[in-house]
Amino acid sequence: MPFKLAIDGMGGDRAPDIVVHGMHLAKSRVPQLEFLLFGDEKRLLPLVKNYKNIQHVEIVHTDEVVPQDMRPSIALRTLKKSSMRLAVEAVSKGQADGVVSAGNTGVYLMFSKLILKTLKGISRPTIVSEVPHEKGEAIVLDLGANIEVSPRILVEFAVMGEIFARHVLFKSSPKVGLLNIGSEAVKGPETLKKAFDALQKLPLNFHGFIEGDDITKGTVDVVVTDGFSGNVVLKAGEGIMRLVFDALKRTLQSSWRGKLAYLIGKPMFHTLAKQFDPRRYNGAFWLGLDGVAVKSHGGTDAYGFSYAIDVAVDILKAELNKKVSQEIEKESVQNLLESIE
Amino acid sequence: MPFKLAIDGMGGDRAPDIVVHGMHLAKSRVPQLEFLLFGDEKRLLPLVKNYKNIQHVEIVHTDEVVPQDMRPSIALRTLKKSSMRLAVEAVSKGQADGVVSAGNTGVYLMFSKLILKTLKGISRPTIVSEVPHEKGEAIVLDLGANIEVSPRILVEFAVMGEIFARHVLFKSSPKVGLLNIGSEAVKGPETLKKAFDALQKLPLNFHGFIEGDDITKGTVDVVVTDGFSGNVVLKAGEGIMRLVFDALKRTLQSSWRGKLAYLIGKPMFHTLAKQFDPRRYNGAFWLGLDGVAVKSHGGTDAYGFSYAIDVAVDILKAELNKKVSQEIEKESVQNLLESIE
Repeated sequence: MPFKLAIDGMGGDRAPDIVVHGMHLAKSRVPQLEFLLFGDEKRLLPLVKNYKNIQHVEIVHTDEVVPQDMRPSIALRTLKKSSMRLAVEAVSKGQADGVVSAGNTGVYLMFSKLILKTLKGISRPTIVSEVPHEKGEAIVLDLGANIEVSPRILVEFAVMGEIFARHVLFKSSPKVGLLNIGSEAVKGPETLKKAFDALQKLPLNFHGFIEGDDITKGTVDVVVTDGFSGNVVLKAGEGIMRLVFDALKRTLQSSWRGKLAYLIGKPMFHTLAKQFDPRRYNGAFWLGLDGVAVKSHGGTDAYGFSYAIDVAVDILKAELNKKVSQEIEKESVQNLLESIE
Repeated sequence: MPFKLAIDGMGGDRAPDIVVHGMHLAKSRVPQLEFLLFGDEKRLLPLVKNYKNIQHVEIVHTDEVVPQDMRPSIALRTLKKSSMRLAVEAVSKGQADGVVSAGNTGVYLMFSKLILKTLKGISRPTIVSEVPHEKGEAIVLDLGANIEVSPRILVEFAVMGEIFARHVLFKSSPKVGLLNIGSEAVKGPETLKKAFDALQKLPLNFHGFIEGDDITKGTVDVVVTDGFSGNVVLKAGEGIMRLVFDALKRTLQSSWRGKLAYLIGKPMFHTLAKQFDPRRYNGAFWLGLDGVAVKSHGGTDAYGFSYAIDVAVDILKAELNKKVSQEIEKESVQNLLESIE
């Protein structure tokens, strides 16, 4: 501390308004935080003026914005000066300690991989995020960076995820589980069985296979899976949360009894809504890169964006990348990884 | 009608009690329904005596029960006379129109495949079940029978699922979606892209790729995916439902305000609980087999088991397998399937 974060002012459905507002909220919680804001100065300047604690923030002007639906390959060729790219470059140049963007996920991941590079000893970066469960929260990885995985890549996810849970979530001996379709060791694809065998040899608290409903039971602290399954589970989960809360709201509004019950129980309903507020879990991290890059949900609001900033701060405070490197570069870990395939 | 169902009296965590009670409940709704009950006569006889409408049900005695954690390969070698196996055989012998079991999923699927055989023109049977969404319900397939799939197999799932939605759920032109990690056609694994291209050539209402949160939005009526993703999404979804409802209960019980709100809004909370009651969605069907086999959740109660019986009845009423065969055997469909790979 103090940390300086590069912010993509133009990324996301409701940028730049919610981005600037989110910066204000985050800085209210962590006053030592500094920003380097990238984007259209004409739009950003009047916005930052609204908030006393960020009105003198450093703005780096650029006209280019990454469209939400642009393919990574096209963005790479055509957008050399986008707010997103410049923000990521600020980290590689040492001008900022980390970067936060709510923009196009595929493009952001590609820029981050190319510019920040992968940590030594890591095959592939992964997307990690926190999810709520009965007893607190767990992390799930990968959430979409790697559609196809090898046993070795899954083991790397497990090692990195364990360190994340230990140092960012402060779990003392985080339990690691491999997502499968049956908790018996005999089921599931070959890739998972090989990863299972390798994980038993590592000095971490490996729980074994878990099933989909173990995520919310809190059976483990670290849920390891491929990027396809992780992505559909995360998005389906968000959908189910919304389905149930919308139905609850509709049901209570459907009659005078319901409306009265809501009025009386209001503080309880608010506690519940807060507990599962998706904004609280906003902020996915590109784990395994030599730099701190956090992705905010594109459709979030200022509060959600401010929580994504918090994620970057927590990771910087934990010196996560340094700890991942130390663990991954250990000879015993490298030997095991190389023995897998 | 009348239909006769073979029932595995001994399958599931709470068998035979909830099985027999479930038969009673189902027969109360569909009085013409007949049963052939397989299992330990000494245990089943006193149970059926409790319910007037099934007290004279035909019981086929056997001592063998498939343990919940037995591997399919071992069950195949060692259990020739299990209640589950005999119940499936009753269908192949024409003694029953369909079979329902709450027993070991892997063993039940294997017995069903071996004994009932796959419908002509279908490569692999799939597990299908209904799930609730904003506007009603959709079906998801595959839920765990096929961990790895080819483009052709996904297209077969889509064709069979569309017929299921049309004839069992009475949707007039069911929309079919392929589960992917991005709705843009450029994303996702090669298998999905090839299935996407093939599905555009079929005369069905193909919506294209959908993402995890589209399931609960009700974007499509038929969600097509591989058995791994389908299984983890379904189980994770059940877990999230439980998480939210448990938290709602706990929050309301945590104070006098909450308790009062619950008392006043009781009918509304019951409506809500009923809407998402997992028992209502109990009953997965082995789609693609030459026979009607329905799997009940192993941990369900009598109500849940009775709904699994309803699923079998609905499928028999719809003459689903006949309709699937007619569609799949069409020359145009076979030509397309063979062109895929």
